[in-house]
Amino acid sequence: MTHEVHVGIVGATGYTGAELLRLLSRHPNARLHVITSRAKAGHAVADVFPSLRGLLDLSFEDPEQASLEGCDVVFFATPNGTAMTLAPPLLDKGIKVIDLAADFRLKDAAVWEKWYGMPHACPDVLAKAVYGLPEVNRDAIKNAQLVANPGCYPTVVQLGFLPLIEQGMVDADRLIADAKSGVSGAGRTPAVNILFAEAAENFKAYAVSGHRHHPEIVQGLNQLSSSPVTLTFTPHLTPMVRGIHATLYATLNTPDVDVQSLYERRYDSEPFVDVMGFAAHPETRSVRGANICRMAVHIPLGGQTVVVLSVIDNLVKGASGQAVHNFNLMFGLSETSGLEAPALAP
Amino acid sequence: MTHEVHVGIVGATGYTGAELLRLLSRHPNARLHVITSRAKAGHAVADVFPSLRGLLDLSFEDPEQASLEGCDVVFFATPNGTAMTLAPPLLDKGIKVIDLAADFRLKDAAVWEKWYGMPHACPDVLAKAVYGLPEVNRDAIKNAQLVANPGCYPTVVQLGFLPLIEQGMVDADRLIADAKSGVSGAGRTPAVNILFAEAAENFKAYAVSGHRHHPEIVQGLNQLSSSPVTLTFTPHLTPMVRGIHATLYATLNTPDVDVQSLYERRYDSEPFVDVMGFAAHPETRSVRGANICRMAVHIPLGGQTVVVLSVIDNLVKGASGQAVHNFNLMFGLSETSGLEAPALAP
Amino acid sequence: MTHEVHVGIVGATGYTGAELLRLLSRHPNARLHVITSRAKAGHAVADVFPSLRGLLDLSFEDPEQASLEGCDVVFFATPNGTAMTLAPPLLDKGIKVIDLAADFRLKDAAVWEKWYGMPHACPDVLAKAVYGLPEVNRDAIKNAQLVANPGCYPTVVQLGFLPLIEQGMVDADRLIADAKSGVSGAGRTPAVNILFAEAAENFKAYAVSGHRHHPEIVQGLNQLSSSPVTLTFTPHLTPMVRGIHATLYATLNTPDVDVQSLYERRYDSEPFVDVMGFAAHPETRSVRGANICRMAVHIPLGGQTVVVLSVIDNLVKGASGQAVHNFNLMFGLSETSGLEAPALAP
Amino acid sequence: MTHEVHVGIVGATGYTGAELLRLLSRHPNARLHVITSRAKAGHAVADVFPSLRGLLDLSFEDPEQASLEGCDVVFFATPNGTAMTLAPPLLDKGIKVIDLAADFRLKDAAVWEKWYGMPHACPDVLAKAVYGLPEVNRDAIKNAQLVANPGCYPTVVQLGFLPLIEQGMVDADRLIADAKSGVSGAGRTPAVNILFAEAAENFKAYAVSGHRHHPEIVQGLNQLSSSPVTLTFTPHLTPMVRGIHATLYATLNTPDVDVQSLYERRYDSEPFVDVMGFAAHPETRSVRGANICRMAVHIPLGGQTVVVLSVIDNLVKGASGQAVHNFNLMFGLSETSGLEAPALAP
Repeated sequence: MTHEVHVGIVGATGYTGAELLRLLSRHPNARLHVITSRAKAGHAVADVFPSLRGLLDLSFEDPEQASLEGCDVVFFATPNGTAMTLAPPLLDKGIKVIDLAADFRLKDAAVWEKWYGMPHACPDVLAKAVYGLPEVNRDAIKNAQLVANPGCYPTVVQLGFLPLIEQGMVDADRLIADAKSGVSGAGRTPAVNILFAEAAENFKAYAVSGHRHHPEIVQGLNQLSSSPVTLTFTPHLTPMVRGIHATLYATLNTPDVDVQSLYERRYDSEPFVDVMGFAAHPETRSVRGANICRMAVHIPLGGQTVVVLSVIDNLVKGASGQAVHNFNLMFGLSETSGLEAPALAP
Repeated sequence: MTHEVHVGIVGATGYTGAELLRLLSRHPNARLHVITSRAKAGHAVADVFPSLRGLLDLSFEDPEQASLEGCDVVFFATPNGTAMTLAPPLLDKGIKVIDLAADFRLKDAAVWEKWYGMPHACPDVLAKAVYGLPEVNRDAIKNAQLVANPGCYPTVVQLGFLPLIEQGMVDADRLIADAKSGVSGAGRTPAVNILFAEAAENFKAYAVSGHRHHPEIVQGLNQLSSSPVTLTFTPHLTPMVRGIHATLYATLNTPDVDVQSLYERRYDSEPFVDVMGFAAHPETRSVRGANICRMAVHIPLGGQTVVVLSVIDNLVKGASGQAVHNFNLMFGLSETSGLEAPALAP
Repeated sequence: MTHEVHVGIVGATGYTGAELLRLLSRHPNARLHVITSRAKAGHAVADVFPSLRGLLDLSFEDPEQASLEGCDVVFFATPNGTAMTLAPPLLDKGIKVIDLAADFRLKDAAVWEKWYGMPHACPDVLAKAVYGLPEVNRDAIKNAQLVANPGCYPTVVQLGFLPLIEQGMVDADRLIADAKSGVSGAGRTPAVNILFAEAAENFKAYAVSGHRHHPEIVQGLNQLSSSPVTLTFTPHLTPMVRGIHATLYATLNTPDVDVQSLYERRYDSEPFVDVMGFAAHPETRSVRGANICRMAVHIPLGGQTVVVLSVIDNLVKGASGQAVHNFNLMFGLSETSGLEAPALAP
Repeated sequence: MTHEVHVGIVGATGYTGAELLRLLSRHPNARLHVITSRAKAGHAVADVFPSLRGLLDLSFEDPEQASLEGCDVVFFATPNGTAMTLAPPLLDKGIKVIDLAADFRLKDAAVWEKWYGMPHACPDVLAKAVYGLPEVNRDAIKNAQLVANPGCYPTVVQLGFLPLIEQGMVDADRLIADAKSGVSGAGRTPAVNILFAEAAENFKAYAVSGHRHHPEIVQGLNQLSSSPVTLTFTPHLTPMVRGIHATLYATLNTPDVDVQSLYERRYDSEPFVDVMGFAAHPETRSVRGANICRMAVHIPLGGQTVVVLSVIDNLVKGASGQAVHNFNLMFGLSETSGLEAPALAP
């Protein structure tokens, strides 16, 4: 008999919410119980997202009146600052929570408050939250009540550096992550800079002097590194809807390391990390819609610098797919359940 | 016990071939047996299409040496003119054939030869071929040995006009189909006009004075119409990868027809046609990757002209998804088998 | 000695405003005197539009305090409803006005109010306004004090139909204009539907049941037609920044008309209309950045239906370039002054 | 009286050729004398490039029969390996030559042969060629008979690093250039990887293990550096037509350097380099169609790493615009002649 989990989603009108709906609508063990949205309360989900017509027979409910108590798990696909207010009472009732925003990602509340520009509503809960990067925290996630789902950039950058850092192969003091993101990563709230006529046929960096995902990446890498990590992180906006390509640079501590084998061994049993052959070039479209981080390693001109190319779909492995992976782990389901669909290319 | 069908694909290195592989790799009843390609013989499928890494453990075989005889069905995802040469011996052996190219779509060999610029290799087989538009020919497809899978434009245009023509609601002598296609519809063989730097940030019509899909559409509509059809068909190239939007114009014979109900009734039980509410605007992305034809009906300013907006993914409902639908019908499988995945939007 | 005209621009922070600045910054006879913007008052123009760095040494001024009185001409690049309030006092002072919005385009105030959803502030001024389509109203524009610059769709559709309508060659009762616009046509005010992640890799129609440009087109064609015009107008949103492609359909009254010669003769002396050879396919990128309407005529399969393909850059010939053309006419300058730069392709 | 230079172009059917035609068609001192193309001989230029209709009344001539002898200067917009064969006899006749390909860029013929995979036809001529980066070699260019126009990546990377390298401010042994190019940079010869349906909605690196522009960049920087340069150069293909964004990383030798002033001073009098304010983010569209390299400097989180963001239009400052700049210098014309048009944004 199939195990059935009652699922609630808070705030499913942005891109990560829509993507959660797409994935969960076909998940054999998820029963969508309640979906809330202040702005769209009363509207059928299929009216807001016509791509889901015929797949979901639910309407958005007002968050004030929605009964999340009947859920086994609640996903928050809300702006930063919402889950930290609404999650604690659910946690108190024994409900599991997966937050796709940043509220529970940083362990240090002061650092969080600096980067997110608001006081943290429940700093005491931070210690309880498990950072939902399964390739690092699989066992903890299985037993977690509260999972902080990683950011998109932090996912692709950490997975790309991870084998080198864990093994102390590179100078942790000089890491560079040059990351390029599709525009859906900026969300669905209207703003001039993400209009089609601004972002199409255009390429630019942003937040080069400091981005919120920087402390999250450094926190994660520091946990794995024997020496403190210094990272230069440069995000760019790319004229495509989905996908992140991270180009990672590090200096090898010793020559003649078999970096390729290192990566293959590290990720050999991971269902959602794919290491390509040495010196390959992963394309973002090869993971579009799929919960995969695909990567390849280069040592250009045989020098001291190792270059890792790492790609994800920012809405899947960088957000909602990883959240479903965490959901599977938290409820003892098959890890790949609901996540088997191939990428859509071209 | 699951019914398992042995499948061969000839020429799977273009976009329709890749899409067939994507769909069949997850189909519960299809066992991919052999895949041929002259150009890529010996190469692993996953090397040519990295999006299929981990999903398919097959290599392309040389068509001369591949044993298609062990197949229950062979899909041809080849250029026009190939299947008409290679299919007859397979048919003689009792193997079923689904041709995604145009070789068996037109009943009149002379018309075919005029538009495709070559002699037809087996005009005698044309009568045997069933035109694979399930919404029109479902029963015939179930019993067919040879299915001519419709073209992308013909699918979206015929389905859009069908209820009006069947019921004689409009002047069949003045139909206009203004169709806009994504660039993948032009195939994967390199040519200047489909280069990124030519097709991006650009919009143009092509073949306005006459396009190969014109006789196919007219043949199909004439079968349903009580009076002969005259159609103006204008294809355009649109800067997107996937999707066709057909904007169809017809003049109503009588005012005060409930066109909306007509459409809803006609497609009520069709699993792959979705009629939206009156005066809605279907978007191509709402069917991206899905085997759906989504449509809406307008009567602008309450006049005599009915406007039907009809969208498909040209590679799915316009090609490989429809081919899998036909496959399901031909082998008595559930019609939606392998075709349940939601569209990918955004 | 060069004639120098003092120019003011009200509201230059949208796309038509930015395009006016680009064109006027190189115009030999225009001296930019004052630029207003409530939102950007005090900011240098080059900070808002970095593409103009080094070309313009002006800052936006608060419209309340800006002295437009010193101008010979004021362009309004404002939302609909602004110019009708601010223009009358300028007109009273003898200043010329070119409105790029819709305030003065329709002669019938009641029709305007119906489509634009607000009362008209100065219906008495409407009679004085000249509709700024130089190919129709050249002489009147030369003597006008107030020019209503045409909309983008109305420009490309009227110019495309014009020779046929003027000569009574087609059934005026059955015109169809299927138009496809780049996203910049929707302006620069943030909204969900024009976000990159909504409009990219997507194609859709909008306002099919009725669009504001419909009465403007019909008003213009009716002036030229001996019988009343009935038009079906279908706008679509296309995933590109600039460009409109109009595909126009009409039924010829008599066969064997030399439509090609008709078009060539009509536009022979027009500097900004280019008639291509018979059955050619104009591309939108061929006019990107240029003040040109390029068109071609087809008679598909030798039938009764004439198809005209007509393209413009919506921000140039569809807005700011045409405004500069009108400016040149109003001040007795060379018609092509400031408008000679070739299109940017690719 | 205006100085008039007779110009020939060899091979003007690619993107750099088309761009040369666009720029020279409006250049007050250039008289286009002859344009050759083997493939398009006999065709009017305006038929091949409809964006030039009405601007150029020339036809392509067969290179065998074209008389280049009557030219004062010949531009080569040909594939690598052509100019080195055809230029020497022209040089012998005293004709000036500007090669937009790579034939004369590297001083060491052996290095050239290694990267370009063919023997060099005239290694003795290499010493005579001046590398056409005006910001470095202005005086030499003025007196050159043969100019090797720089590659697109080398232009944007060298200009970005130049002030730091010249002043010995950074560790020359650890330079990283992460560069993102629009697809027009790959040329107009059809190939699968640059098809729209392959390159759109996709991002990937290529040639990470070694790219032909690497030795060209290193050669240029070594000339300015007091210690040998080691560079990691990573090119990426970006889904846009025009533009390169280079993100450059270097380690400062000493803290507290005023890098911003250094850049402003170095480029103060350069007409085609624009240094934005500290920590700005230049966009590629801000230079689209313009002969500008726009850049900004960051020191993220106040650390040791300096990040320079540098953008060009690969077809203008990265190719044909820089060639026209060199042309102006070689013939004693105003440096900005023919290059004043503003960028086209959006």
